[in-house]
Amino acid sequence: MPVGTQATVKGLAQRDLEELGVQILLANTYHLFLRPGHELIQRMGGLHQFMSWRNAILTDSGGFQVFSLSGLRKITDHGVVFQSHLDGDLHTFTPESTVDVQLALGSDILMALDECPEYPVSHEYARESIERTLRWARQAHEHYLRRMGTSPTRHALFPIVQGSMFADLRRRCAESLVQLQTDGYAIGGLSVGEPRHLSLEMVEATEDLLPRDRPRYAMGVGMPAELPEYVARGIDMMDCVLPSRNARNGYLFTSQGRIIIKHARYKDDPRPVDENCGCYTCSRYSRAYLRHLFQSGEILYAVLATRHNIRRYLDIMREIRQAILSDSFPTYLRTIRLTSDDSE
Amino acid sequence: MPVGTQATVKGLAQRDLEELGVQILLANTYHLFLRPGHELIQRMGGLHQFMSWRNAILTDSGGFQVFSLSGLRKITDHGVVFQSHLDGDLHTFTPESTVDVQLALGSDILMALDECPEYPVSHEYARESIERTLRWARQAHEHYLRRMGTSPTRHALFPIVQGSMFADLRRRCAESLVQLQTDGYAIGGLSVGEPRHLSLEMVEATEDLLPRDRPRYAMGVGMPAELPEYVARGIDMMDCVLPSRNARNGYLFTSQGRIIIKHARYKDDPRPVDENCGCYTCSRYSRAYLRHLFQSGEILYAVLATRHNIRRYLDIMREIRQAILSDSFPTYLRTIRLTSDDSE
Repeated sequence: MPVGTQATVKGLAQRDLEELGVQILLANTYHLFLRPGHELIQRMGGLHQFMSWRNAILTDSGGFQVFSLSGLRKITDHGVVFQSHLDGDLHTFTPESTVDVQLALGSDILMALDECPEYPVSHEYARESIERTLRWARQAHEHYLRRMGTSPTRHALFPIVQGSMFADLRRRCAESLVQLQTDGYAIGGLSVGEPRHLSLEMVEATEDLLPRDRPRYAMGVGMPAELPEYVARGIDMMDCVLPSRNARNGYLFTSQGRIIIKHARYKDDPRPVDENCGCYTCSRYSRAYLRHLFQSGEILYAVLATRHNIRRYLDIMREIRQAILSDSFPTYLRTIRLTSDDSE
Repeated sequence: MPVGTQATVKGLAQRDLEELGVQILLANTYHLFLRPGHELIQRMGGLHQFMSWRNAILTDSGGFQVFSLSGLRKITDHGVVFQSHLDGDLHTFTPESTVDVQLALGSDILMALDECPEYPVSHEYARESIERTLRWARQAHEHYLRRMGTSPTRHALFPIVQGSMFADLRRRCAESLVQLQTDGYAIGGLSVGEPRHLSLEMVEATEDLLPRDRPRYAMGVGMPAELPEYVARGIDMMDCVLPSRNARNGYLFTSQGRIIIKHARYKDDPRPVDENCGCYTCSRYSRAYLRHLFQSGEILYAVLATRHNIRRYLDIMREIRQAILSDSFPTYLRTIRLTSDDSE
C-alpha cells in the first residue's frame, strides 16, 4: 500500500495511482485529523470523495504518529493527550474517538488505537503496554460494532498486535486479540529501530496464532527484499513510505539493485532507471535526465522517481502473487535471497 | 509557450504537456548552459531527446538571464562576461557562442544575443545599447547562416527588437533588424518593471515595420487579459512564467477571474477551480482539496495547479485564434476589455 499521509501520495496524481494498479492506499488519521480535519472531510463526502479516490483506503489509528511526531503527550488508560506538531494545540485520542474519526473519514479499513512503544523497552514496560493496547482494542471493537449497527456502509476494523521485541508478549497479545474475531489483524511496533532479523522474528512469533482466513497486515515495512520474507511469514498486506520517500531523496529501486541518482556516473547515462520496468518514467526518460532534474531540484524529478519506485514495489508484489499461484513461491524466495544485496 | 527553464515545465510531465496541446515550449539557454551543460545535452542527442519532447522548442539567447540572475557581469562590444549564479564560475557569451550553444541544444527557434537594459534607463544609454544589440544581431545572424550551410537540420533565428521605452529607438532597431530578413522577430525588453501601457505602446511602435509574413514574438508577457491586447498589436507568439509560477504560489487563473487558493472561503468549496475548464484538475478535484494540498505543502498541489493554469492560457489563445478565424476578433477584444478586472 502506497502511503498517502495527507490525502495524497506525494508527487502522484490519483490517475497515476490508478494507472499503476494501486488497489488500496494508506492515509494517516493523525495528519488528517489535524489538517484539514475529519469533520471537514466528512462534510466534503468523506476521504474518497475529497481526494477523488475510488479504490480502497486504509487508515491507521493515529497512535503511531502521536508517539513519533507530536510534542508533549500523556498516555493514560483512558487514551492519549497530545500536542499538535502544527500549532501546539492539545487534543485527545481515545479508542472510541479514533474509530469515530476514521469513520468520519470514510476509511474502508480502520485500525484500533494502540500504543507503539519505542525500541528498546523493558519486558515489564512492554507487558504493561500490551495490556493497555488490549483494553483499547476491546473498547475500539465494541464501539465499532455499535457504530456499525446503524452504519449504511461496510468497513473493517483491525486491532494491532504489539509486544515490542518479546515473542511471549506478542503471542499473549495475539491470543487475546483473536478472541475479538475481527476482520483482520495488524502487526505493529516494527520498523522502530530494531535489527531486521528481530522484525521478522516478531512476525513469526504469532504466525500460528492469527487466523489464516483473515488478512494480516505488517505495518510500516519494508525494503524490497524483505517483502517476500514477510509474505513467507504469513503477511498479506504491508505499507511503507520507503518507495515514495526514498524516491524523493534520490534513491531508486530497480530489478538490478538500487540507483543513487545523484552519482556522477549517471550524468550521461541514456538508459532508463530499470530496463525491465514498464512504468511511464522508464518508458520515456533516461537516468541522465532524471539526474539533471534531481540536481536542479525540479518537481518533475519527485513525480517521475516516485512513480517508478511505487511501480517497482507493486511489481514485486505481483511477482510474489504469481509465484504463489503457480506453486513456486519457495523457489522465488530462494532466488531473491541469493540475488538481493544488502546495499539495496 | 509554457516556460521550461531547466528542460522541464515545473511540475508537469511531458505527456501532460502533450495532453494540454502544447505545441512549443521555451527553454533557457543560460540555465542549460550552466547545468547540465549544452555539450552533455548534445551528447545525449539534443534537448528534444534529452527531455523526451517531440514538439518544438524555442530557446532564448541567455542574455536576459545574464542580466537578471548572474552576479558580476561585464558587457563589452565583444559580448558579455558573467558569473554563474550556481558556483560563481566566470563564463562568456558572444553573439556567435550563444548561437553555437543553442544549436548544440538542438533548439528549433534560436534567439540572437541582445542586451536587455533594466528600466528605466536614459535615452542615451538605450541608444548605445541598441547599437550593440544590432551589431550582435548581425554577427549572430552571419554566424548562424554559416552554421546552417553545413547543418543537416532546419532551425530559425530571431533577432530581438530593443530600445527600452523609447518608440524612436524601437523603430530604429526594428528597421535595421528587418534588413537581416530573418525567419521571425522577437520584441524584448518588456516586463522589466515598466507600467503596462508602456509595454503595449512599445509593441505598437514597431507594428508597421516588422514584416507581416514572419512571426512576431513578444518576450515574457503577460497576464491573461493582456494576451489579446498583444495579439491586437500584431503579436503571434508569447512566453510567460506567470501561469506556472503563479500556480505554484497559489494563484489560479479562471474564466471568472483569479482564485487565491489559500483563502479560507475555499476550504470547503466542492466546486472545481473553473467550472468552464476541461483540464484534468478541474474534471476531478475540488477547490477544497487543492486548498488542503496547498496548505499542506504537497507536491500534488503544484502539479494540479500548474496543469490548470497552463490550460487556461492555452484556452485563451485558442479563443483568440477562433475569433480571428471567424472574423470576430474585434468583438472578442471588446468583451475581454469589459469583463476583465484589474485584480486578475
